[in-house]
Amino acid sequence: MEEIKLFCPATIANVSCGFDVLGLCLTQPGDEMIIRKSSTPGIQITKIGGHNLPLATEKNVAGVAGLALLNNLKELKAGFEIEIYKHIKPGSGIGSSAASAAGAVFGINQLLGEPFSTKDLIPFAMQGELLASGALHADNVAPALLGGFTLVRSYEPLDVIKLPVPDQLMATVIHPQLEVKTADARSVLKHSVSLKSAITQWGNLGGLISALYTSDYNLLARCLHDEIIEPLRSVLIPGFDEVKKTALAHGALGSGISGSGPSIFALSKDKETAQKIASAMAEVYQKFEVDYDIHVSKINGDGIKIL
Amino acid sequence: MEEIKLFCPATIANVSCGFDVLGLCLTQPGDEMIIRKSSTPGIQITKIGGHNLPLATEKNVAGVAGLALLNNLKELKAGFEIEIYKHIKPGSGIGSSAASAAGAVFGINQLLGEPFSTKDLIPFAMQGELLASGALHADNVAPALLGGFTLVRSYEPLDVIKLPVPDQLMATVIHPQLEVKTADARSVLKHSVSLKSAITQWGNLGGLISALYTSDYNLLARCLHDEIIEPLRSVLIPGFDEVKKTALAHGALGSGISGSGPSIFALSKDKETAQKIASAMAEVYQKFEVDYDIHVSKINGDGIKIL
Repeated sequence: MEEIKLFCPATIANVSCGFDVLGLCLTQPGDEMIIRKSSTPGIQITKIGGHNLPLATEKNVAGVAGLALLNNLKELKAGFEIEIYKHIKPGSGIGSSAASAAGAVFGINQLLGEPFSTKDLIPFAMQGELLASGALHADNVAPALLGGFTLVRSYEPLDVIKLPVPDQLMATVIHPQLEVKTADARSVLKHSVSLKSAITQWGNLGGLISALYTSDYNLLARCLHDEIIEPLRSVLIPGFDEVKKTALAHGALGSGISGSGPSIFALSKDKETAQKIASAMAEVYQKFEVDYDIHVSKINGDGIKIL
Repeated sequence: MEEIKLFCPATIANVSCGFDVLGLCLTQPGDEMIIRKSSTPGIQITKIGGHNLPLATEKNVAGVAGLALLNNLKELKAGFEIEIYKHIKPGSGIGSSAASAAGAVFGINQLLGEPFSTKDLIPFAMQGELLASGALHADNVAPALLGGFTLVRSYEPLDVIKLPVPDQLMATVIHPQLEVKTADARSVLKHSVSLKSAITQWGNLGGLISALYTSDYNLLARCLHDEIIEPLRSVLIPGFDEVKKTALAHGALGSGISGSGPSIFALSKDKETAQKIASAMAEVYQKFEVDYDIHVSKINGDGIKIL
């Protein structure tokens, strides 16, 4: 195989009670990437469509992630060209950088005859996240690579668990075209939490994991709460409270901030409900005269797809 | 049915990363209770064998729990006599009061023709716990009533989830005859925890729940950690660090404080290992010349049993 074309999906990190540990993979939106072998060792980003992102390998998340993989195979003098067609807007909070980083390492691994398992690719993709956000996090690249829901149990050592997905589960995501600076999203966090809130959170996360294994949508709904991070970060997203309230009023199992925002997600148990929620969420930002993108998607159990 | 005889098992609350939410049920030790209908309305504790506990209904956890059930059925003028044969030592940290409280409400419910589901009995049993410890907690009475592992997701409203148990899972519990005052076990807790530790804890709890559904013993072992409560409470239990270290060295998947102590538990994946761990734990307290009881038990998937 000389060339591979990939669909690299968007992802939702945190998912209410799963701050810093949970993530899930969407069926859409997603980027397309073409990766081909090259006679020049290393990585060249030859084309980026859709958004204005750096072509220099060391400044591009796909480039940096791909180099991390190649550097792990030192004896190999392989080279690759990467074309990226972005459909996930950078800064939207649904894993735009993760899609590129995960796509690069997934595609290169395929072209090399799979020297690594998909799980082994996560640390390489995390190098792309480090470039994008300044933090080595896996809660978007893990679901992009593995699909479904993923739990990052630990970073030292890295321990990622793939969780099952209830069949009917749908996500609605609205991306209001507002900027939330990552630095702001971080600075509002507190270094300590009350033991009482922490217990509530781990009770909810435990219940959520049980709900995924048993396809118990009612339990899932009872668990989709976050009383630690959401109250702090949601103030950075104008309209958040109204969007969330509207989503719940239209049948959402739960609703919260996607990653560090500004996108807001809602989960529901059928497509019709997911679309109703989309219309209702859209009305909120129409009223505020804020532009938005909206996505209705099944949960993607497979992750990155070869086209 | 005029009379019922029950086996009321011991339980382990908290289970490392599950502080205040997780509990599990043991096959042994356990109390025996005989409950019979009486022409005198209300509850009479007619006999307590094994340990010196109050016979006055309002001062006895079984009495108080039973009354809570009867008070919920106000039109009914039923009466019951309860005999309790204690084999679980009060103050051991393996749910002695929970066994009595859960047994009382389970037995009375049976004799009344099951007006309540087993889950509905939990709040009544919790009244016994309130008498015993001053706190309305369910992490022992829930596994005693339901069996297996239970997750108390929330108290307001009460939401208890029964979790599956891997087939081979065994528990070893050592009860050193040392007193840990509940007030001390509480006073060492801090009101706040670092966000970092809380995230570690909910990652571990999420992984543990996944491990129970998938019978993944290796994952279970990776998750059986508690960096929040155990470091604070274990200093109240002389020998804790050595017992834990010894249990792990002899093949335990994990080891920690049972409830608020002084009992120390270890989980393992077969009976032979569980017995080796028991011998090794026992040697520690023999060396310190501290008396102890030791129990090797399968996880009890069924809870209270009718004899």
